[in-house]
Amino acid sequence: MNFADILIARSREKNSVLCVGLDPNLDYFPRFLSNDLKEKDYKGIADCIVSYNRAVIDSICDCALAVKPQLAYYEPYGSEGIRALEQTIAYARSRGLIVINDAKRNDIGPSAQAYARAHLGTGPISADMVTVTPYLGRDGYQPFIDAARDNNKGIFILLKTSNPSSSEIQDLALNNGKTVYQEMCHHFLPLTEQTRGDQGYSFIGFVVGATWPAIARDIRGLLPHSLFLAPGLGAQGGNAEDLSVFFDRSGQGAVVSSSRAITYAYMKNHDHWQNIELPEMKKCIRDQALKDNSVLNTIRHRTGV
Amino acid sequence: MNFADILIARSREKNSVLCVGLDPNLDYFPRFLSNDLKEKDYKGIADCIVSYNRAVIDSICDCALAVKPQLAYYEPYGSEGIRALEQTIAYARSRGLIVINDAKRNDIGPSAQAYARAHLGTGPISADMVTVTPYLGRDGYQPFIDAARDNNKGIFILLKTSNPSSSEIQDLALNNGKTVYQEMCHHFLPLTEQTRGDQGYSFIGFVVGATWPAIARDIRGLLPHSLFLAPGLGAQGGNAEDLSVFFDRSGQGAVVSSSRAITYAYMKNHDHWQNIELPEMKKCIRDQALKDNSVLNTIRHRTGV
Repeated sequence: MNFADILIARSREKNSVLCVGLDPNLDYFPRFLSNDLKEKDYKGIADCIVSYNRAVIDSICDCALAVKPQLAYYEPYGSEGIRALEQTIAYARSRGLIVINDAKRNDIGPSAQAYARAHLGTGPISADMVTVTPYLGRDGYQPFIDAARDNNKGIFILLKTSNPSSSEIQDLALNNGKTVYQEMCHHFLPLTEQTRGDQGYSFIGFVVGATWPAIARDIRGLLPHSLFLAPGLGAQGGNAEDLSVFFDRSGQGAVVSSSRAITYAYMKNHDHWQNIELPEMKKCIRDQALKDNSVLNTIRHRTGV
Repeated sequence: MNFADILIARSREKNSVLCVGLDPNLDYFPRFLSNDLKEKDYKGIADCIVSYNRAVIDSICDCALAVKPQLAYYEPYGSEGIRALEQTIAYARSRGLIVINDAKRNDIGPSAQAYARAHLGTGPISADMVTVTPYLGRDGYQPFIDAARDNNKGIFILLKTSNPSSSEIQDLALNNGKTVYQEMCHHFLPLTEQTRGDQGYSFIGFVVGATWPAIARDIRGLLPHSLFLAPGLGAQGGNAEDLSVFFDRSGQGAVVSSSRAITYAYMKNHDHWQNIELPEMKKCIRDQALKDNSVLNTIRHRTGV
């Protein structure tokens, strides 16, 4: 039983493949949370982020499969920001959520091993999964694969990202007729075959943006044993219908991530969202998560019928 | 006057292009520092790392241009590890060293902006420069360029890294006859031309491993306005002679990094290095840094003569 089996079992229990991104941005917090915070009051900011994240987690924990803290939003506040991350990870786990550190870490040798230990070990910011950037080649991602295997956790390697300029490197046309991302699939396929679990999926997954449906179909064919993390639903313009290609006949095969569109749903619902209180904030977040999960469930359970 | 000008002026004052990597590994610390530390005593570990880094900084601050904390070695200890990083950065600056966060950060849009603010802003882990991984394309590196320009700091974008499997993506042959790294040079050249300072160098630099002299020569020709960060001297097997291609006639053009070979020099000099005391530890580190700096100065001042 590998981590993909654990994830799929949890997904069936909850009837969800939804992952909610935790990208705390003080500018989008209602006033009851962020009032009177000073710019350099890192402890106050960190406490405020923890309060915010706890409210999000409480709102979505029964209808979402996972949360995905984006580490970029914690690092600006230094050690206090990382303390907020630690508390967020611990709280999300206590509420039954899988935690995916969106860290896009990458390095080689002992440094990559140290990053893998940080994110996939037993330390204070260790999660269940971590995102990994493959630009350094196998020296860069193998230590994360080793740590995931040893600790029964998982990784998502960036393959084809959701942003417009992802084409700059990822889509370059090679002299063998393939693109860079297709060539990477060729490298990754044997690694995923060797690490399949009871449900047929490897603990080595890939990030494939929800914004490129034709490419997603291509990659799904090239890497049939991997779970995909599909960001880009919502704020980045990805269309839920386009995601159908990610799923197998049992409705598994991907975790779909949405961040701002869920966690700041109250900004859309209220002209004066700055003044809303906790119950209304949680209701808006919960309603959007329930809606997104329902749309995703319709799509993935229709696939292959 | 951009950050490349500041770096070059500092390099001339100190007669050094040497950057010392700060990769704290408890297994390599003498006993007087790490005795009796418990595995989960993150505060104790962080204090120990700060003591170690201060000893290294004191030993090398007059003969090295910069230090390069490798963030992978701080993250396993969570907020306490990042507190050690904050104190290390502050101390290195107080001793007149340029600080390069070896973070290899990468993301898109607001997330990349947040990382750029964390590492190139005014926050607790902000440094003078940061390393950036370009796999996501321009959406990924432009926010770092913008932050560096706005705050008069600099970046090093990973281009051709020192490790054996760097070829897996970076050397792929494209259908236009170029390799991936050459194609990236083509993207980067106009950005570096637009951001040149008084000395002719951009604040947008690149990581080019010291282990690939022929490729380094190629890249030097393709990106004539950029400083290179050349890791791989020492433990990774890079040869100082091979670095000559990086330097212009005035002996500028690159920062050369060595980590373990300097900071753990006492392991080579002492069979029972675990038992050495602080003065001997500092002497071994200092002697190795002086020696490396002298070798580098000979090579770079010979270039173009």
